[in-house]
Amino acid sequence: MSSNANTVAESYPMTGGHGPYSYTRNSHFQRAATTAAKAVIDDAIAEKLDLEKIRSASERTFCIADMGCSVGPNTFIAAENIINAVQHKYQLQGLASHIPEFQVFFSDHASNDFNTLFTSLPPERQYFAAGVPGSFYGRLFPKSSLHFVHSSYALQWLSEVPAELLNKNSPAWNKGRVHYTGAPDDVARAYTAQFSLDMSTFLDARAEEITVGGMMVLIIPAIPDGIPHSRVPGGVMFDFLGLSLMDMAKEGLISEADVDSFNLPVYATSAREMTELVAKNGRFSIDRMEMTSPRSRMDGPISGQACTMHLRAGMAGIISKHFGAEIIDELFHRFYKKTQEFSDRLDSTYDKGTQICVILTRI
Amino acid sequence: MSSNANTVAESYPMTGGHGPYSYTRNSHFQRAATTAAKAVIDDAIAEKLDLEKIRSASERTFCIADMGCSVGPNTFIAAENIINAVQHKYQLQGLASHIPEFQVFFSDHASNDFNTLFTSLPPERQYFAAGVPGSFYGRLFPKSSLHFVHSSYALQWLSEVPAELLNKNSPAWNKGRVHYTGAPDDVARAYTAQFSLDMSTFLDARAEEITVGGMMVLIIPAIPDGIPHSRVPGGVMFDFLGLSLMDMAKEGLISEADVDSFNLPVYATSAREMTELVAKNGRFSIDRMEMTSPRSRMDGPISGQACTMHLRAGMAGIISKHFGAEIIDELFHRFYKKTQEFSDRLDSTYDKGTQICVILTRI
Repeated sequence: MSSNANTVAESYPMTGGHGPYSYTRNSHFQRAATTAAKAVIDDAIAEKLDLEKIRSASERTFCIADMGCSVGPNTFIAAENIINAVQHKYQLQGLASHIPEFQVFFSDHASNDFNTLFTSLPPERQYFAAGVPGSFYGRLFPKSSLHFVHSSYALQWLSEVPAELLNKNSPAWNKGRVHYTGAPDDVARAYTAQFSLDMSTFLDARAEEITVGGMMVLIIPAIPDGIPHSRVPGGVMFDFLGLSLMDMAKEGLISEADVDSFNLPVYATSAREMTELVAKNGRFSIDRMEMTSPRSRMDGPISGQACTMHLRAGMAGIISKHFGAEIIDELFHRFYKKTQEFSDRLDSTYDKGTQICVILTRI
Repeated sequence: MSSNANTVAESYPMTGGHGPYSYTRNSHFQRAATTAAKAVIDDAIAEKLDLEKIRSASERTFCIADMGCSVGPNTFIAAENIINAVQHKYQLQGLASHIPEFQVFFSDHASNDFNTLFTSLPPERQYFAAGVPGSFYGRLFPKSSLHFVHSSYALQWLSEVPAELLNKNSPAWNKGRVHYTGAPDDVARAYTAQFSLDMSTFLDARAEEITVGGMMVLIIPAIPDGIPHSRVPGGVMFDFLGLSLMDMAKEGLISEADVDSFNLPVYATSAREMTELVAKNGRFSIDRMEMTSPRSRMDGPISGQACTMHLRAGMAGIISKHFGAEIIDELFHRFYKKTQEFSDRLDSTYDKGTQICVILTRI
């Protein structure tokens, strides 16, 4: 199929938002229509809808979800890859005439920019697209409704900053830092406990949603056993970010208390930790688990500019929420200077595996 | 189920849009991860995915789509109504323990404000929510994947303005008007032909998507046989809009040629016309078809202010696209004055049925 038909018709959206001229606040007439139709719909369902008939209809759709999809284009590429691989398998098995239709669910927080995601969908896609708003640390889909789940660079986000980090009386109070890199063991332990809780919640929810035999691919920033966090790219970048914020606090541009109370809810797992958490869940088998490095696929020397833009796109939201949007330009200017000043630290990190790819089958 | 779990986790969306700091333009690292994972995913699908196993999994989800949902809250109310009615039927049939989970697909053009829609979803909803971008004048869902389709006040929007209206050499050239109300028969015929084409396309697509035994409820502005368009609310409002635009053209605030080339792609059908189009499609039976009036549910006298706000929320988008957003305030100020000056015309319209409610079952 192609979505060509969908792009032909012009669109005239109702006025969005919640302002005085919005559709939300100016749709009483349509509301009345809905109210008036209620009884009629109720009757039709009660008298005419044949529950048996619709339940027995065969299902021929292959459903894929990308969790933590953000706004593309990576999520579109991932979806195409999966679909091509499934189609290929049908062909190899002599089942070309049985290739199902595909439905791809792009899922992320309700605050994700779904408008941008939807308007940048590939026009010639070979699937039906849907967006699903909500946190993947909870149920998002009906039982056994998914055949393939993909999540890349999303599960490093914890559901929240561990509470102990914000408690001045706790040994895990994280004064003057924004992460557990270089912090006392108590801080790192609090992060580990939070990740364990979050990943368990994630696996429990997906075990309900993925049909038996279905698959899940998770790509997560990770750290090889035995390598300190201060040697992995994420750790170094968060160090630079903390140093830049502290510099600004010392110059009075922001308050030091605000830096103390700010922590990035981001965690890098390890192969051992993931193996344990999957085993504890008990409803997935591990088909494959390996450390890889995205760096090996990139060309040329590490660019401080690229690092800065990368971190800014991912972190400007959470930083603005805490410190205000007005510090962003200055902060990332300082961050960039750190990448130049300490380029040797950044360079020395990228040789090791820094992400884990886990492939699970629902058993 | 409840989505409580989804609202607990905080969200830190990537930077949206397409600007220099956007995630879209700054996600090379994550892209590299996707690229690196491709071969691994390909292998896993080829070697591990059991196609038979996942196809035989029972489906227990009841899938509902609202087409032309806009940004709420009406669409949420409609979804709840349908779900309550289905649950009630299961209970009445002694099948309370078999009540399925519900998935509601909110569908509208990709340019609809899905961000607002998603952030205003009822927190305690009893369904899994998804958004589906695209025109309903084309396929949006996999085959036989829907059990219930609802569409209220959306199918009056044509896929496009009939081409003849813009052709100075055509007898359907619609000079000085923005609609077929009060226009020559050729103009009305061009609208009718477009509606017939669009509704056929809509019914063809839905016949593919709705499982046999599934239902569709369409609520559409309509006109009773024998009543002239100049006597129905929509007709009068579009007259006022055309008059207001022509006043502005005469004062040189906008160009008259722009008014000539502007036409609202909006149409009011009739019971006879809908009956014919459903019969022509041949894949739905008509359970019920009736003219109703939302007005009878509204209290008090007709408010020119309410009419103005209503029309503005629905039409500001299309008018801005043609004339520029800067004319909107002035235009609707003038429109409001017309509703006051000619309030008798508006008052005299509302006693007749002005919408049609059609209930179809997929056969």
